[in-house]
Amino acid sequence: MPELRKDPIIDRWVIIATERSRRPNDFNQNTPSPPPADSVFSPGNEEKTPAEVFQIGRATDAPKDSSGWRVRVVPNKFPALSTEGDLDSQAYGVFDEMNGVGAHEVVIEHPNASWDLADATPQEMADVLDAYIARNQALSEDPRFRYILTFRNFGTAAGASINHPHSQIIALPVVPRQIKDQLRVAQTHFNDKLRSIYADVLRQELKDGARIVEDSEHFVVLCPYASRFPFETQIFPKRGGADFTRMNTLEKAALSEVLPRTLKRISNALGNPPYNMVLQTAPITKERIGNAGQWSTLEQDFSWHIDILPRLTQVAGFEWGTGFYINPVAPENAASFLRDSL
Amino acid sequence: MPELRKDPIIDRWVIIATERSRRPNDFNQNTPSPPPADSVFSPGNEEKTPAEVFQIGRATDAPKDSSGWRVRVVPNKFPALSTEGDLDSQAYGVFDEMNGVGAHEVVIEHPNASWDLADATPQEMADVLDAYIARNQALSEDPRFRYILTFRNFGTAAGASINHPHSQIIALPVVPRQIKDQLRVAQTHFNDKLRSIYADVLRQELKDGARIVEDSEHFVVLCPYASRFPFETQIFPKRGGADFTRMNTLEKAALSEVLPRTLKRISNALGNPPYNMVLQTAPITKERIGNAGQWSTLEQDFSWHIDILPRLTQVAGFEWGTGFYINPVAPENAASFLRDSL
Repeated sequence: MPELRKDPIIDRWVIIATERSRRPNDFNQNTPSPPPADSVFSPGNEEKTPAEVFQIGRATDAPKDSSGWRVRVVPNKFPALSTEGDLDSQAYGVFDEMNGVGAHEVVIEHPNASWDLADATPQEMADVLDAYIARNQALSEDPRFRYILTFRNFGTAAGASINHPHSQIIALPVVPRQIKDQLRVAQTHFNDKLRSIYADVLRQELKDGARIVEDSEHFVVLCPYASRFPFETQIFPKRGGADFTRMNTLEKAALSEVLPRTLKRISNALGNPPYNMVLQTAPITKERIGNAGQWSTLEQDFSWHIDILPRLTQVAGFEWGTGFYINPVAPENAASFLRDSL
Repeated sequence: MPELRKDPIIDRWVIIATERSRRPNDFNQNTPSPPPADSVFSPGNEEKTPAEVFQIGRATDAPKDSSGWRVRVVPNKFPALSTEGDLDSQAYGVFDEMNGVGAHEVVIEHPNASWDLADATPQEMADVLDAYIARNQALSEDPRFRYILTFRNFGTAAGASINHPHSQIIALPVVPRQIKDQLRVAQTHFNDKLRSIYADVLRQELKDGARIVEDSEHFVVLCPYASRFPFETQIFPKRGGADFTRMNTLEKAALSEVLPRTLKRISNALGNPPYNMVLQTAPITKERIGNAGQWSTLEQDFSWHIDILPRLTQVAGFEWGTGFYINPVAPENAASFLRDSL
């Protein structure tokens, strides 16, 4: 019998369709294309990108946009949003429109185009996290921006158009409704129960154990109860905290090991699949969202986290039409495979 | 400058990223695989599917599950939901779960595996619509079901696993939140203004003209103002009406020409692309959703419609993380291409 499960935070149902259950090997469809030796993001090609906004590793007296960096951040050459201008928000009859003001940056994670984040050393991963944090903090200073998303598309089927390992950062002039909804649920839960809904979920998951991939001092890795996709995986800081840029030194050191190890588990279990990785953090504006009361603070009721979504199935008419998802792999099975895949 | 546009009904922002603008030819990526001569859905293979629940065309004295049909509806052999049992809805700690009770049927649209819905004659299309209507009405009688989605996945990249032309119907035991949200917006709009939001949108679109693909006596075909995807196309009945199964004879005859013609425009413009087609109709339960008042009726404030979503771009980290969409083709350009592509 298939099972319907509801995510307590997103208010979204998924169908865990056990009749269609598949094993990890069934998904090993795509041989990854061989990594490029050289790309537009490689050292020596710095002039092929817009001028850098951040770098780590170059000698202090070396010129800007020269080689010698370990991590480099540049504006996207084909940005989805423009950093220039004002919002100029207006009605257009029954519609709303505004200028596409925002930022769209590329974090080039390593000089070597064939390097893989799943193989990152703790120092390499810490460099990438430092770049995320620095750019999130810098973009937060722009009063036009309300929300920043840091994400990584890996593999063509996951939307990556350049093979050189990179993440992206997009700053938006509005808080997406999907985020507002999550924050509202978290706030209502806290005001009702004086407990964070994220802490409640983690406590139940750790007690159950069936969906836990890894439990260490600072982070929990799990396959969520109402996973939309096969092998969907989340990383939560045990301490909570709304804003990932404020993670402490111990947490950053731990995440620098936990995140590559989690990607390695997925790569081993599924044959280096395409995936999307999304860093969910608090909006720039720390004002309360919604009107469910003013008792709690975002810091108390929300928790930043990382979502990893392997792209193994197609999103199709049913999902577009309903917002429901059909997942052919029970998250308990996914977690079990991932636990054993190191 | 990219443009941010908000859908007035879904409360969803899209980025129309003109800097990334592309012409239809840029999307002609996939040569469709040659149509199969024979499939599990072909006449003569009736025993390879579960026993049919509906058919059109067979002689009245012919045995069930024999050949001679023009359209045939069978339960999905690998259903996402089970027709047996009760919901048994329950809490599981902080989570909610219920049995995956529902229906999952396949509408085999034509005996010929290499036939294409875009080439359907009016009679062939009317047969398919009659099958949709008959099965939606039959499934509506089951008191366990709350919402029925009729949809069509065309092409492997759009999630179709069998090449033989077919649609699918899924009956769900809950009304998806995405649908409830739309109904709530429509109801609030009507109660505020005594006008349907769909009628307001159609009136503005017809006056503008820029996003209209085709305007005929009973239906309007358009590329929506806040299209999520390149060449996203919608078909609206001019008369409105909440429930597509209650369209009248003239409307059914008109849609039997408009729908294949719209698919043909998309096929011509984009080289037979993969797509998802979704029929948005009222929930089975005609009770009012939400608490915004009891003045209007669903029939007044909601309008059924068909969404066609060509699958030309990848949904990636940004979309999963925010619910925003980046669309590299302005809907005005898409509509212009589709108008000229017959």
